[in-house]
Amino acid sequence: MYEAGDVRVEDAPDPVIEQPTDAVVRVVRSCVCGSDLHPYHNLAAADGPAPIGHEFIGVVEELGSEVSGLDRGDLVVSPFAFADNTCAYCREGLHTSCPNGGWYGNGGVGGAQAEAVRVPQAQGTLVKLPAGVDEGLLPSLLTLADVYGTGYHAAFRAGVEPGDSVTVIGDGAVGLLAVLSAGELGAERIILMGRHKDRTDLGRFFGATDVVAERGEEGIARVREMTGGHGTRAVLEAVGHLPAYETAVGVVRPGGVISRVGVPQYEDAPVGFGSLFGPNVSLTGGPAPVRAYIDALLPAVLDGSLEPGRVFDRTVTLDEVPDGYRAMDRREALKVMITF
Amino acid sequence: MYEAGDVRVEDAPDPVIEQPTDAVVRVVRSCVCGSDLHPYHNLAAADGPAPIGHEFIGVVEELGSEVSGLDRGDLVVSPFAFADNTCAYCREGLHTSCPNGGWYGNGGVGGAQAEAVRVPQAQGTLVKLPAGVDEGLLPSLLTLADVYGTGYHAAFRAGVEPGDSVTVIGDGAVGLLAVLSAGELGAERIILMGRHKDRTDLGRFFGATDVVAERGEEGIARVREMTGGHGTRAVLEAVGHLPAYETAVGVVRPGGVISRVGVPQYEDAPVGFGSLFGPNVSLTGGPAPVRAYIDALLPAVLDGSLEPGRVFDRTVTLDEVPDGYRAMDRREALKVMITF
Repeated sequence: MYEAGDVRVEDAPDPVIEQPTDAVVRVVRSCVCGSDLHPYHNLAAADGPAPIGHEFIGVVEELGSEVSGLDRGDLVVSPFAFADNTCAYCREGLHTSCPNGGWYGNGGVGGAQAEAVRVPQAQGTLVKLPAGVDEGLLPSLLTLADVYGTGYHAAFRAGVEPGDSVTVIGDGAVGLLAVLSAGELGAERIILMGRHKDRTDLGRFFGATDVVAERGEEGIARVREMTGGHGTRAVLEAVGHLPAYETAVGVVRPGGVISRVGVPQYEDAPVGFGSLFGPNVSLTGGPAPVRAYIDALLPAVLDGSLEPGRVFDRTVTLDEVPDGYRAMDRREALKVMITF
Repeated sequence: MYEAGDVRVEDAPDPVIEQPTDAVVRVVRSCVCGSDLHPYHNLAAADGPAPIGHEFIGVVEELGSEVSGLDRGDLVVSPFAFADNTCAYCREGLHTSCPNGGWYGNGGVGGAQAEAVRVPQAQGTLVKLPAGVDEGLLPSLLTLADVYGTGYHAAFRAGVEPGDSVTVIGDGAVGLLAVLSAGELGAERIILMGRHKDRTDLGRFFGATDVVAERGEEGIARVREMTGGHGTRAVLEAVGHLPAYETAVGVVRPGGVISRVGVPQYEDAPVGFGSLFGPNVSLTGGPAPVRAYIDALLPAVLDGSLEPGRVFDRTVTLDEVPDGYRAMDRREALKVMITF
């Protein structure tokens, strides 16, 4: 990505093992993330060009000398953040705070919208998938790299439990999988705020009980009206822009929780007496430690009982990735998968 | 309170029963709260004069026709917010969000720095104390009206549990009782940030294991140094000014929680990737539903095993209340009790 709006596919040297804890993975499926749209809108030319992409399934091609438990030829999925999976933070399930961890596309590690990726901390990061897995499952398995785990993080951090009432803000892939996750955790009522009917229809398929297409004050009033004036106990915010935060404050029940997984495009926001403090509302969330959730989420994906991969509604080749960005930016595609 | 810095004691008509759910209570002990200092610094003349005070122990003098479970002559303590104790919010322990509740000194209800108070929702609000309780226990019992329950709320909402690490920001009465509460909930390490030695000494008596007198960046660096660079899992913020919030962000461990009970004197604050979101830090707290905690906190106060009343270090008569404000404002007194 050279700058906002300018994504190019270029030849680059194949990645090689740099640390004994590295692996090189040949990518089989990758995709474009809603969070990639933030730099697609904002990246300054001075900060580019930058490799991009952080979600992939691939085949292990090379292994550093200190990596065990993986073999060349293994099919693996990678969480969007790499981590050692052994430190105190990882053991607590907070892999995104691992001191040996980091992010694809940063600090000399390539992006995953590429033919191959160097994976630092490969042993702690990569999760082996069954050999010979049905190709039809790859889209759902790919969501374990980010969007399913991120939607799950929103619901998990909000403490969603059986009988709960939940509002999900945002009908992107993460919002829709937050709906799925809230339902899996037992939420009884799931109000999805989104205005793209094809997406909110998928949200209903994933378990949304109500859809609110209105935004801003009107959307807040609608959710309050639907909840006896109270709002819902949990609000899962899967957008990242300040108006979504303000909507979350508007629809959360006193004593409830706003759980954010949309990467905030703001630093300051209302938290005082008139927003969070007065009604004892909690704010939680952050970048999802998806590695912590993969083991639990994998079985229902493998047996086909859950299909988070339905969020992919367009497939492109690597050469067509710039078109993929455009399609997602124009909301013509919900989520774009890249095949190789 | 006429305006900032101007507190006067005036004759006022005795309160009378206005609603069948009211009681009139003759005050035996009242006090000045750290939160009363906020209007003492900021109240505009146009917003005054306003009755003030919200903490008291007293004797029931009159009862509305719909109040049961209380008798004239009962010694009672009142939470700083009145509430019906029957609605959905009260049943969840969130009395400060009771739709029939409210705050002393507002909306036609008098303040508690007075000889008598009208108590709305008396049946749900007032907690009866044993007849003939030792007068020496009154200061500790008085803390159940606010500062002990508020300190407890900070620790409770932060989920403090055995073995935990906690930083308490602020050496006022609430901060010191947050220390006491964190210890009661089993915290192993309690770092108290405060710079008044007589207060932090009381904090040590209440269970603080470490004291950090430095403030701002220096204080943050000190706490990080003491915690292997990580910060503590829980941070209890008992001040309410923005620098205290910033300190909380600086000393909280990734994945940890900031629990606020200092009334925020700001509306916007940092919550983005660089503060709360990136490290998955949660923010919680609000006005304490102290009614929810009184039953649990009362026994250890009555049997003398805990002495939260040690926060009172000066006693004044009602006529001397303006002096009490001055003493607290100048940090000459930690907390001022009013006798009648």
